[in-house]
Amino acid sequence: MGRVHTAHGDFDTPAFMAVGTRGSVKGLTPDMLRDAGCQIILANTYHLMLRPGAGAIAALGGLQKFTGWNGPMLTDSGGFQVYSFGDRRVLGEHGVYFRSHIDGSMVHLGPEKSMQVQYDIGADIAMAFDDCPPADCPPERLAAALDRTIRWAGVCRRRHDQLDRETRQALFGIVQGGVDFARREHCVEEILPFDFDGYALGGLAVGEGHERMIQTIEFTAPLLPPNKPRYLMGAGYPRDILEAVKRGVDMFDCVLPTRNGRNALAFTSRGTMRLRNAQYSEDPRPLDETCDCLCCRRFSRGYLRHLFSVGEMLGPMLVSLHNVRYFQRWMLDIRQAILDNAIFELVAPKMDISASAAGPASPNHGGSAAD
Amino acid sequence: MGRVHTAHGDFDTPAFMAVGTRGSVKGLTPDMLRDAGCQIILANTYHLMLRPGAGAIAALGGLQKFTGWNGPMLTDSGGFQVYSFGDRRVLGEHGVYFRSHIDGSMVHLGPEKSMQVQYDIGADIAMAFDDCPPADCPPERLAAALDRTIRWAGVCRRRHDQLDRETRQALFGIVQGGVDFARREHCVEEILPFDFDGYALGGLAVGEGHERMIQTIEFTAPLLPPNKPRYLMGAGYPRDILEAVKRGVDMFDCVLPTRNGRNALAFTSRGTMRLRNAQYSEDPRPLDETCDCLCCRRFSRGYLRHLFSVGEMLGPMLVSLHNVRYFQRWMLDIRQAILDNAIFELVAPKMDISASAAGPASPNHGGSAAD
Repeated sequence: MGRVHTAHGDFDTPAFMAVGTRGSVKGLTPDMLRDAGCQIILANTYHLMLRPGAGAIAALGGLQKFTGWNGPMLTDSGGFQVYSFGDRRVLGEHGVYFRSHIDGSMVHLGPEKSMQVQYDIGADIAMAFDDCPPADCPPERLAAALDRTIRWAGVCRRRHDQLDRETRQALFGIVQGGVDFARREHCVEEILPFDFDGYALGGLAVGEGHERMIQTIEFTAPLLPPNKPRYLMGAGYPRDILEAVKRGVDMFDCVLPTRNGRNALAFTSRGTMRLRNAQYSEDPRPLDETCDCLCCRRFSRGYLRHLFSVGEMLGPMLVSLHNVRYFQRWMLDIRQAILDNAIFELVAPKMDISASAAGPASPNHGGSAAD
Repeated sequence: MGRVHTAHGDFDTPAFMAVGTRGSVKGLTPDMLRDAGCQIILANTYHLMLRPGAGAIAALGGLQKFTGWNGPMLTDSGGFQVYSFGDRRVLGEHGVYFRSHIDGSMVHLGPEKSMQVQYDIGADIAMAFDDCPPADCPPERLAAALDRTIRWAGVCRRRHDQLDRETRQALFGIVQGGVDFARREHCVEEILPFDFDGYALGGLAVGEGHERMIQTIEFTAPLLPPNKPRYLMGAGYPRDILEAVKRGVDMFDCVLPTRNGRNALAFTSRGTMRLRNAQYSEDPRPLDETCDCLCCRRFSRGYLRHLFSVGEMLGPMLVSLHNVRYFQRWMLDIRQAILDNAIFELVAPKMDISASAAGPASPNHGGSAAD
């Protein structure tokens, strides 16, 4: 239980950030996000630098004014996205050259450029630019990536200090090392001297499985300063979040609420609910009788089922709204349990979809095509 | 200037109804509609009887509870839709048999069935089931359609009186006759004795052109009772509405605000604005500086352009919301001009898209695929 201060307001921890990859949490207005209890939103450097471009966002007053979300915003560094390009990119000491997925032009993104873009667009929390190779690549590539992540952490720190002389923007470092404890420890030791404002655990929730993810968190989190936020990138399911909180993680982001909401899958206090199912055709009950969101206050399962059945966009809007609220309520439960000294008694509701860490590589990270 | 009372509240006239064909005004929650100034919403009998079915809507508490729109609702009779099927339907004295566009099954819709469906789903204003052939069909077909529309008006009246003994549901008759004044006059004379609660002008805004539409309204409207609402179905553009109001029309519906909103075309006090245009990329101004809608209060043209550029659904949501508000503000201007005895001085802003009545047959009527 804590509170983080940013240039555009505070947020409580443990915190879950809804993902607005391209400057919009899909299907939801900023008012809806606020009503759902969101306090901080994530946006994606890679996508925004391509469209509309950092210059356009700066010209339109920065991320907050641009998006209408007048609260804290975190931007990822773009590293995760450009590494997913595989053969379409060339990696070097100054970053990555890749072909834009928009128009095929060559684009460069590296530690200095990422700092510049995140500064120009006005993120409250910027992320260091790291080298995050796929979990299944050869050991020598993993070792090289870790070394580069550490060197780039220093590059990001210096560039950020030059840019942000008024220190309004926080900068988080990223700990890599896969599920190898020695590598994680080495990375932490090397980047702690840069004195970041917070520390993220990268390279997790990318297919390693729930157990190995949690073990890695359990090992790594205590190595990080207790007075700075710890952020598990790209996770996760309610259970992932709870287990990570128990091990000292403060911040989370995931596309699950909105991506599943658009696909008619609702998270509820009794598990998941697939609204395309005909059993809901004449069901007058709200999605979740314990929920206080607009969707649950006003609409029946039968109506929501109808909206998806006929392809009305109000269906994705309402179920995304509910799911975002579900995750915010889950964070409220977690914070209350911490206050009550009962976090280890809290039980996550069972969700009958495969856990994030058991799925294909990183389907749930922001900035993927399917956020 | 007037006010119409219904079982679910009142609405002011002249009134513009946003179109919620399948029980949802595309991309907008009921709260957004209310904030935009909507007082009455139109839904479509044909689409709703197929999905989710009248039984499901009744089981879920009727249209208002089903949709969450706790205000007046009008349903069209379904006639307009089934006649657009051409070869896929068989017309007889009891109505139309056609193949469902959902599953190919044979479905029947006629005057008695339409009354039953509209009653079961709980519309505040039901429309008589008419025979509305294409404007370009042979004269003998037009004559037969008019005779049938008149006979069916009586069938609808009797069936409605049986169903609605508490007289909570209003029933409007429909005047057909194309642009032939003699036919219009004949139709009015024949259906007036049924003492409908209001009268619609059907078969207009279907490709006859603005001038002929207005001339037909000018001839027909004065034949209708002055103390009952007159409704011009499926129109229109701000100019169409104004000219029709001057000739005594009280109610309108059209898909223009939402259909165009989804396609990045905004109606503004200075004309239309195509938000995909690159000129708006870094434009910090609101869509319409005179507008008080959420979209104009919070978002820039640059952000809206970005949303459409990257395919974010928030773009269609926000511009639909603005356009709905634009039409409601236009109705406020019209009502104020009536109060000020200045309606004949009011000038409609020029919109640089072809006028509704000059386009292809009936593209702007609710219930078409592209509402």
